[in-house]
Amino acid sequence: MQDTSEEEIEMVMECARRAYRKFSNTSLSERANFLRQVADALEHSRELLITTASGETRLPEERLNRELTRTIFQLTNYAGVCESGLWLDVRIESENAGQIPSKPALAKTMIALGPVVVFGAANFPFAYSTAGGDTACAFAAGCPVIVKAHPEHLETSILVGGLITKVAAICKLPPGVFAHVIGNSISVGETLVKHPLTKAVGFTGSFAGGRQLFDWGNQRNTPIPVFAEMSSVNPVFLLPDKTHEDAAGLAKMLASSITLNAGQFCTNPGVIVAVENEDLDEFVEELSKALLKSVPEPMLNPGIYKNYIKKRATAISQDEVKLVATAAKDAGLNEGTPTLVSVPATQFVNNTILQQEVFGPYSILVKCADMIEMHQVAASMEGQLTATLMASTADILQNESLVNTVKNLCGRLLLNNVPTGVEVALGMQHGGPYPATTDSRFTAVGGDGIRRFARPLSFQNWPDELLPAELKKGNPLRIWRTVDGELNNS
Amino acid sequence: MQDTSEEEIEMVMECARRAYRKFSNTSLSERANFLRQVADALEHSRELLITTASGETRLPEERLNRELTRTIFQLTNYAGVCESGLWLDVRIESENAGQIPSKPALAKTMIALGPVVVFGAANFPFAYSTAGGDTACAFAAGCPVIVKAHPEHLETSILVGGLITKVAAICKLPPGVFAHVIGNSISVGETLVKHPLTKAVGFTGSFAGGRQLFDWGNQRNTPIPVFAEMSSVNPVFLLPDKTHEDAAGLAKMLASSITLNAGQFCTNPGVIVAVENEDLDEFVEELSKALLKSVPEPMLNPGIYKNYIKKRATAISQDEVKLVATAAKDAGLNEGTPTLVSVPATQFVNNTILQQEVFGPYSILVKCADMIEMHQVAASMEGQLTATLMASTADILQNESLVNTVKNLCGRLLLNNVPTGVEVALGMQHGGPYPATTDSRFTAVGGDGIRRFARPLSFQNWPDELLPAELKKGNPLRIWRTVDGELNNS
Repeated sequence: MQDTSEEEIEMVMECARRAYRKFSNTSLSERANFLRQVADALEHSRELLITTASGETRLPEERLNRELTRTIFQLTNYAGVCESGLWLDVRIESENAGQIPSKPALAKTMIALGPVVVFGAANFPFAYSTAGGDTACAFAAGCPVIVKAHPEHLETSILVGGLITKVAAICKLPPGVFAHVIGNSISVGETLVKHPLTKAVGFTGSFAGGRQLFDWGNQRNTPIPVFAEMSSVNPVFLLPDKTHEDAAGLAKMLASSITLNAGQFCTNPGVIVAVENEDLDEFVEELSKALLKSVPEPMLNPGIYKNYIKKRATAISQDEVKLVATAAKDAGLNEGTPTLVSVPATQFVNNTILQQEVFGPYSILVKCADMIEMHQVAASMEGQLTATLMASTADILQNESLVNTVKNLCGRLLLNNVPTGVEVALGMQHGGPYPATTDSRFTAVGGDGIRRFARPLSFQNWPDELLPAELKKGNPLRIWRTVDGELNNS
Repeated sequence: MQDTSEEEIEMVMECARRAYRKFSNTSLSERANFLRQVADALEHSRELLITTASGETRLPEERLNRELTRTIFQLTNYAGVCESGLWLDVRIESENAGQIPSKPALAKTMIALGPVVVFGAANFPFAYSTAGGDTACAFAAGCPVIVKAHPEHLETSILVGGLITKVAAICKLPPGVFAHVIGNSISVGETLVKHPLTKAVGFTGSFAGGRQLFDWGNQRNTPIPVFAEMSSVNPVFLLPDKTHEDAAGLAKMLASSITLNAGQFCTNPGVIVAVENEDLDEFVEELSKALLKSVPEPMLNPGIYKNYIKKRATAISQDEVKLVATAAKDAGLNEGTPTLVSVPATQFVNNTILQQEVFGPYSILVKCADMIEMHQVAASMEGQLTATLMASTADILQNESLVNTVKNLCGRLLLNNVPTGVEVALGMQHGGPYPATTDSRFTAVGGDGIRRFARPLSFQNWPDELLPAELKKGNPLRIWRTVDGELNNS
């Protein structure tokens, strides 16, 4: 299919600008209703969507079904958060004429940034693409959305886009509230990010792609926020006491996390850090056994498969890297073979190639002589979406400094758990220090992600009848608000 | 005084890194106590501070006293917000093993970004400099602060810095929690912003300066957030009904706002937009009279004075710009003469020079043929800290589209009020679309400003005894938390 032309993009952006004026002034419940109706439309078209996505990607139908369910849940969940008004952070200050100088009445809420450009993810044709997390958050904030479809699941994207457009019409929203743009060439993305009417960007994908968008966004005459979720190796630190206690259990838990869906999750545990001793030998033996028995699974598309093979080979060719275990079964066409390699900590710390993400069912075991080396490994790492400690309470208490360093690496810190599986909830943080994301102060998953696309606006000295509903006396929306420093919902 | 050397900066940053580990783990009440003690120390040294600042700047003692009082209030206010835990946005999700897939326990709070570099403002030697808003917010978030003193009030800065250092020692905080750096040359700022250990930047000042820091911050291998509060002309729109009702009252209100402290506020109303008619004639007459009677005041420093003279002259020399009124009294050395000029809307819209900030007691009246032109003027403007509507309820209701456009221009929208006077309160938003600030999603004034320097961290599957106090069962800090979607403080 042909790329959307520059003229068409111009028209799309102008429509988005017009839609913004109306859409940003819709009520929270109108937006929530829109999101819920998109969710319903996806459910009604489930069969067609799954068939289409399964024809375009190599993801198993069962996984696609689960992802679609997640996407529907996400839309519904963010609808609820939108309506709750929690993300508006309403702050009301009463006038105090007696104060010197006198204190004016202030009432702060959030307004939509403007048209948001969303780049769909290759590995999530539903949950992080056309009607995915970024789109849902932008809609909740009151922003029109322009999606650049991922070329690897274009038909699916067009289908979903059509549903959104249909629902928008049913909800009597202006037509420009959503647009679907096709771009195989990089220049379509560039035009969108550099367009003066674009006010924010959401992206899930590679480091190179994300950084490019981030740079374009910041180099503009009027810079815009680019929230890119990029790369993460999600290190797992095996602490001695816990490893001694349950080497086999940890191995089993990690094996399934590493191989889950051919390792094609941004939270895949790509690095395991441990101290060399007999307990680690047991762990390695068990993990190797599990990987040996694992089955190579088809990867998302030939590009991702080729990249996996190439990056894995590069890693294996580095000094002192040893192949520890792979699946015994031969890989078929475009299938990713689960692979475990190992390297001494001193090498890992000095070789940044080994610290880069190998997107697929791959993990590197970093062997440390002692806890001092483990701390050096942690200190050498870049920002991550997640970091995991496999540790007993004693391990945590005895390694305060290491725990502190690991905490500062990531946006989500797990204890005796695996990082794959990103719960859609307010308690989730899916965003870590660079290069995991471009702004660790925001999340790409969970209702707080709405905040990426909104900004505070304070009304000073406005009479009640002219204020938006969420700021009115008597709190007609019954939302939580901070009034003169005190939270209440009455 | 000599610039801090590269070697010294290296040491300062390394100390800050070390201090971060300890300081970011202090309790909210320890940080609040620190801020309150800094406030007390400023109060105790008031006399010396005022004498010093009044020797270095040309600000009247009375204004300096008021500013110091504000600074002390600010520190105390942010201490309260810090302790309230409101800015932590705590979100707790209970485990649900029955859910498929099972839902893990999640507990989200905020952690400090790391060492923050603060550039003090020329026009606020206390409130937005060494112990000013950015510093107070960064401390509240748990970040060490490195202040680059503004060369125009270096002695004052050193004095305040000394007090902070002393208080930090009394509070048993690590020495690197605060550092004071001297830089007359631009390279000191560059070194600080580009330093790998710097994790965020706060700046108040010129557009050119702010944009440079923003670019440096974003061009790094690991980009960091640069919150720069830069330039704003704070447009005031006089709507017809209101102008008819109270032309003289509006003129009086605006005259004092324009001339306040020689117009050296970032919220100074630099552009007045109105429809030409008899009511406007009355308004202009009254405003001119008030300016005629006004007294030129000394500007902050010779550099700012020269800039004012130059930029004002440039504006006046533009096509169709007319000088309307100035103070009758001759200006003394380095004194800024209050000045009103006017220009037809068609010229203003097409000449970006006229839209640029003239820092000082200056305002340009943009004369519109009708409301359509007024809307064109609003639509042509860049992002602003504030925008003001002088309007009756009827004006607001009859000009929905204009009101919408003006709303999208700014971070604070005033009605029948003046933008000068920025209340320190949670309801305040001091941050608007670019180029007013580099990120409209944050504020530089009010307790929510703490969020600029913190990021969310989610703990997954941690036992209660290992969680930080704000996340523990039973809520020992008695803060507001969202537990399974519901806010409560029990």
